[in-house]
Amino acid sequence: MCELLAMSANTPTDLCFSFTGLTRRGGQTGPHKDGWGISFYEGKGVRSFHDADASASSRLAEVVQSQPIKSEVAVCHIRQANVGQVCLANTHPFIRELWGQYWVFAHNGQLASFRCPPGFYEPVGTTDSEALFCDILNHLRSHFNRDTPRDQLVQSLVRLSRAYACQGIFNLLLSNGDWLFTYCTTKMASITRRAPFGPARLKDADVTVDFESETTADDIVSVIVTEPLTSDEQWDIYQPGEWRLWRKGEVIHSG
Amino acid sequence: MCELLAMSANTPTDLCFSFTGLTRRGGQTGPHKDGWGISFYEGKGVRSFHDADASASSRLAEVVQSQPIKSEVAVCHIRQANVGQVCLANTHPFIRELWGQYWVFAHNGQLASFRCPPGFYEPVGTTDSEALFCDILNHLRSHFNRDTPRDQLVQSLVRLSRAYACQGIFNLLLSNGDWLFTYCTTKMASITRRAPFGPARLKDADVTVDFESETTADDIVSVIVTEPLTSDEQWDIYQPGEWRLWRKGEVIHSG
Repeated sequence: MCELLAMSANTPTDLCFSFTGLTRRGGQTGPHKDGWGISFYEGKGVRSFHDADASASSRLAEVVQSQPIKSEVAVCHIRQANVGQVCLANTHPFIRELWGQYWVFAHNGQLASFRCPPGFYEPVGTTDSEALFCDILNHLRSHFNRDTPRDQLVQSLVRLSRAYACQGIFNLLLSNGDWLFTYCTTKMASITRRAPFGPARLKDADVTVDFESETTADDIVSVIVTEPLTSDEQWDIYQPGEWRLWRKGEVIHSG
Repeated sequence: MCELLAMSANTPTDLCFSFTGLTRRGGQTGPHKDGWGISFYEGKGVRSFHDADASASSRLAEVVQSQPIKSEVAVCHIRQANVGQVCLANTHPFIRELWGQYWVFAHNGQLASFRCPPGFYEPVGTTDSEALFCDILNHLRSHFNRDTPRDQLVQSLVRLSRAYACQGIFNLLLSNGDWLFTYCTTKMASITRRAPFGPARLKDADVTVDFESETTADDIVSVIVTEPLTSDEQWDIYQPGEWRLWRKGEVIHSG
């Protein structure tokens, strides 16, 4: 399987602390050593880093850990391959353009027998995950348009997610840069940090941060993960079948 | 304007030497300080780095210079903005998926009044370059399919390029990972290095390389640029209106 990490914030915020924790699980404190990737929205642009190697020993991951890249939405994935060989083309997050926006997708789970019906978007690699992403975008493109209200898109994403969840494990992160949709079939947790900020300690590395010194009183920053990353904070665990739509650090819809 | 750099090779090869020279022109030996980007194909996958800052002083560019990333096709761009503000979304190369392949595009020139007619692919940013890229892909998608012979696609790219060239300056790099199409309206040059390899010295930095020690006798590596990067080699200058199709380090069609 894999692990997911995402951030939604109301002000550009770096993800160094959480990313440092997660990357340890890619070959050191965890078995997810078959590649990793992270995408940061910066305005309408997306900055991505991908590697088909173990994140715990990746030079590029080290750079991303130490270089604060500030973003309001970020999506990250470390991979333990099941469907599809270990190669760059099979490394999440996957990115496509729809309606003049970049959409970023990462998936934890397995729908081994899933095939994407022919459509506009096609997988480049051989993972079930990228096929699912293309299927979602083909569905959105053929049923909706750029002016479709967000709620209607989200209801459609919920219906699609439930259908996929009937076929296997489908923990999802999907963003268009404005909002972040998250769906849990087995494992997902989140934490929202806001004033008064305090310290936090990673589970997977001997690293502590004092968020107080890195934030302002108005900041709201949420982190969504497969497994909680810190040992001294209270994480909010998703129920199976639960979805949450995040925007600017807060849940704006859920079900 | 901007400057372009691309590589076509018959074996995975790094671009550190050429990239080091080009990045100096982004704010140090040249004025192209409004962002830079580079995309490396790795199998069917693409690894990209983008920054909206000057490449000469970019930490990320430093990392890319010092970390040999091996690829058979790479496309790079440093930007001096004319159309579209300085931001990540306006930074080349641009990438889209077509027929299950990633297509990578970079452009040097200006077609200020160009607007992309509505189509499947849409620009995310506000550059004329990204609009041109979307127009090219919309054209290919609507007139051809995945089984169209390469020659037919290339003839179509030549016709499109000539039409764009009537509206402004259009120096182009376009790849689908298999081949690299290059079109020159004003400035482009190339060099093909093969055994016996020798040394080379950058124009823009005090850096010399001995390719002999980094290659095998069978390697063929071509570099395509806006302006020659070395001072002690013979570069082959494109004529205005000239195009060359590169594959595995060699020109396989031209006109």
